[in-house]
Amino acid sequence: MLYSQSFINTLRSNPKDETSINAKLLLRGGFIDKLMAGSYTFLPLGWRVYQKIEEIVRQEMNAIGGGEVLMPLLHPKDVWNETGRWGDKGVKEIMYQFKSVDDREYGLSFTHEEIFLDVVRKHSLSYKNLPVKLYHFSTKFRNEPRAKSGLLRGREFIMKDLYSLHSAEEDLDNFYWQVAGAYLKIFKRLGLENVKTVEASGGVFTSGHTHEFQVIHPVGEDTIYHCAKCDWAHNKEIHIHKIGAQCPECGGEVETASSIEIGNIFRFGTVYSEKMGVNFKNADGQLKPAYLGSYGIGMSRLVGVLAEMFNDDFGLVWPAAAAPFKIHLVSLGGAAPKAEKIYQQIAAESAEVLWDDRDESPGVKLSDADLIGAPYRIIISDKTLEKESVEVKRRESEKVEMVKLDNIVEWFKNI
Amino acid sequence: MLYSQSFINTLRSNPKDETSINAKLLLRGGFIDKLMAGSYTFLPLGWRVYQKIEEIVRQEMNAIGGGEVLMPLLHPKDVWNETGRWGDKGVKEIMYQFKSVDDREYGLSFTHEEIFLDVVRKHSLSYKNLPVKLYHFSTKFRNEPRAKSGLLRGREFIMKDLYSLHSAEEDLDNFYWQVAGAYLKIFKRLGLENVKTVEASGGVFTSGHTHEFQVIHPVGEDTIYHCAKCDWAHNKEIHIHKIGAQCPECGGEVETASSIEIGNIFRFGTVYSEKMGVNFKNADGQLKPAYLGSYGIGMSRLVGVLAEMFNDDFGLVWPAAAAPFKIHLVSLGGAAPKAEKIYQQIAAESAEVLWDDRDESPGVKLSDADLIGAPYRIIISDKTLEKESVEVKRRESEKVEMVKLDNIVEWFKNI
Repeated sequence: MLYSQSFINTLRSNPKDETSINAKLLLRGGFIDKLMAGSYTFLPLGWRVYQKIEEIVRQEMNAIGGGEVLMPLLHPKDVWNETGRWGDKGVKEIMYQFKSVDDREYGLSFTHEEIFLDVVRKHSLSYKNLPVKLYHFSTKFRNEPRAKSGLLRGREFIMKDLYSLHSAEEDLDNFYWQVAGAYLKIFKRLGLENVKTVEASGGVFTSGHTHEFQVIHPVGEDTIYHCAKCDWAHNKEIHIHKIGAQCPECGGEVETASSIEIGNIFRFGTVYSEKMGVNFKNADGQLKPAYLGSYGIGMSRLVGVLAEMFNDDFGLVWPAAAAPFKIHLVSLGGAAPKAEKIYQQIAAESAEVLWDDRDESPGVKLSDADLIGAPYRIIISDKTLEKESVEVKRRESEKVEMVKLDNIVEWFKNI
Repeated sequence: MLYSQSFINTLRSNPKDETSINAKLLLRGGFIDKLMAGSYTFLPLGWRVYQKIEEIVRQEMNAIGGGEVLMPLLHPKDVWNETGRWGDKGVKEIMYQFKSVDDREYGLSFTHEEIFLDVVRKHSLSYKNLPVKLYHFSTKFRNEPRAKSGLLRGREFIMKDLYSLHSAEEDLDNFYWQVAGAYLKIFKRLGLENVKTVEASGGVFTSGHTHEFQVIHPVGEDTIYHCAKCDWAHNKEIHIHKIGAQCPECGGEVETASSIEIGNIFRFGTVYSEKMGVNFKNADGQLKPAYLGSYGIGMSRLVGVLAEMFNDDFGLVWPAAAAPFKIHLVSLGGAAPKAEKIYQQIAAESAEVLWDDRDESPGVKLSDADLIGAPYRIIISDKTLEKESVEVKRRESEKVEMVKLDNIVEWFKNI
């Protein structure tokens, strides 16, 4: 893509009305635009990052048998009344609920259990055609009076939510842990290594505990207790051990940490199915309520988390899997014609190159490249052309490598 | 994909509460589910169709220099007040507007001009960095008291909307016609041949007339007047000629037809830019209001239009570009092991094959294949295996062709 035609507008200084690192960097780098507190437009650069993450999540959801769908965002009150959640005090605080001019009552999606169950109950379910596993990437709304954490907490955000329906509790349990495995794979692919699977309270409606996926980070709003040696981790709510106490699993030391929740998984059992009449025919021909699981990943939040975790004094440092581009090509001085040729050669191999074709100073171009944070920067200038070369640098490294013009396409094929 | 694991639930008869062909067929074929009047879930089959269409539109939008973004759906009242549209009587009828429990006023997206302009005005615009062309695929909401046309008219639906900003009216005009060309390309790729570019009234806010893209079809809610010989077409609103009169362009006969609007393009000129302070610096260094264009395609409506246009007594007959699968593989009797091998061979070449692996009667499997409407049906049965062959049939043809097992993968590579 050409920088000059991609609506990339970087800012020289931090926006005044943002306190979070992710919002500051993403706004400065031209990845997002703020409509109001807790609500952002994804600009071309930011949307590319989002789409990279979405494709990874899609692959892993498909790999565990998920079918992609899209459920509506505007929900009639009736279906939320069936589970009793419409009038729930906690729900009323976060769900936007309103009456239209023609006196119909609606709520905006903040989760989709009711909608999923309404879909599946219309079909005759038998133990033979269960489990059902459907997921979507969709907008969620949440009344946040004081949203101030950029993409980490929004009034409007994108989630991946997967719902599963099973004929037996063991089957739900098995799938529940399969999803947990898929989630860890996703986070690892995104370069997030320090993710804990944290046991949490299930609230009144879930059978047994739920699990949150928490990435340890100082700005996190959550607090977790985790073992320094093994995988054991509890959230604050259910934690009864003192800090420094021994891990109940391995005897290791229990530590505390601030963390950001990036996913969660729930076993609802049959509670909602009973309320909404979601039954299946078992092997004996009897109708039984089905077992529901629900599994979320904060998609737009992940963009914020990556920005929050991967940066330095000069800007963003995207992990390869989520970078808006692999290569940021900078042409300086009279090198534009040669740069265009290289750009076209690399672009023919993959779409992962951004060419800064603007008429700007070297200083502006180089600081914008650092700010945007693509994994590789190529500089082509009159000076490098004297050596029939370009200069290649990894974003996170100081080391500069000279690569011959004739070899550059091959060089990038092999990284 | 395996039929048994894809949540495909076909119905033997038409749903009672639907009158439109598209809703009947898409519900019967397991493509969509109805949440309420005018609001549907896209199930895995339907979402595949939608995604096919989306990718075609994305390619054509990128080809004319569009940058993909995502703008929010929940809009603060303030920004809609700037153009005066918040309080407009027509807007109030169709826009969901409400107050949250913490007394903030919001509207739900039914278009995004205000949001686009709010994004671009935050950056210093000059004639050098115009035009800006941004588009997104996003949800729109519209208060429809009596939605009854399936995907043709919804309370919630998906649009592709593109917005462009220019430094001169001629530049806007040029791009306007470039978008028109891209739209016709898109509709053609989808198999829609009879699409008219119809001149329509621009209302009070646009400079000159706008254009609608109307596909001629008996169920259409619109009426157009078009020339039988050339491309001239007017919508009802601006038409002043009597039927049977001569075409003002070529003298040909003017005909009338019912039609469905699938796209539209608007030149807003500088009206909204003036109200919202969207200015650019011209070559003389003066600040001038920028020229706005806005271009929509009804994305989920297109799924409905294709269903409405391409069907027969037995079900859907998808055009290749939008089919959920290219190949519907049906195994009968003891042929499942061989079918699995063929399925895997074809799937390794492309993901475009659905294998009906269910334990169902031939009658059920064949009528479901007709209902779902993939372009090619392959039958593999004990009978075809005697000849070491499979039976291949195009959905819209009666002709059956026998293809040797050994050649089947190659056969599909060449179609």
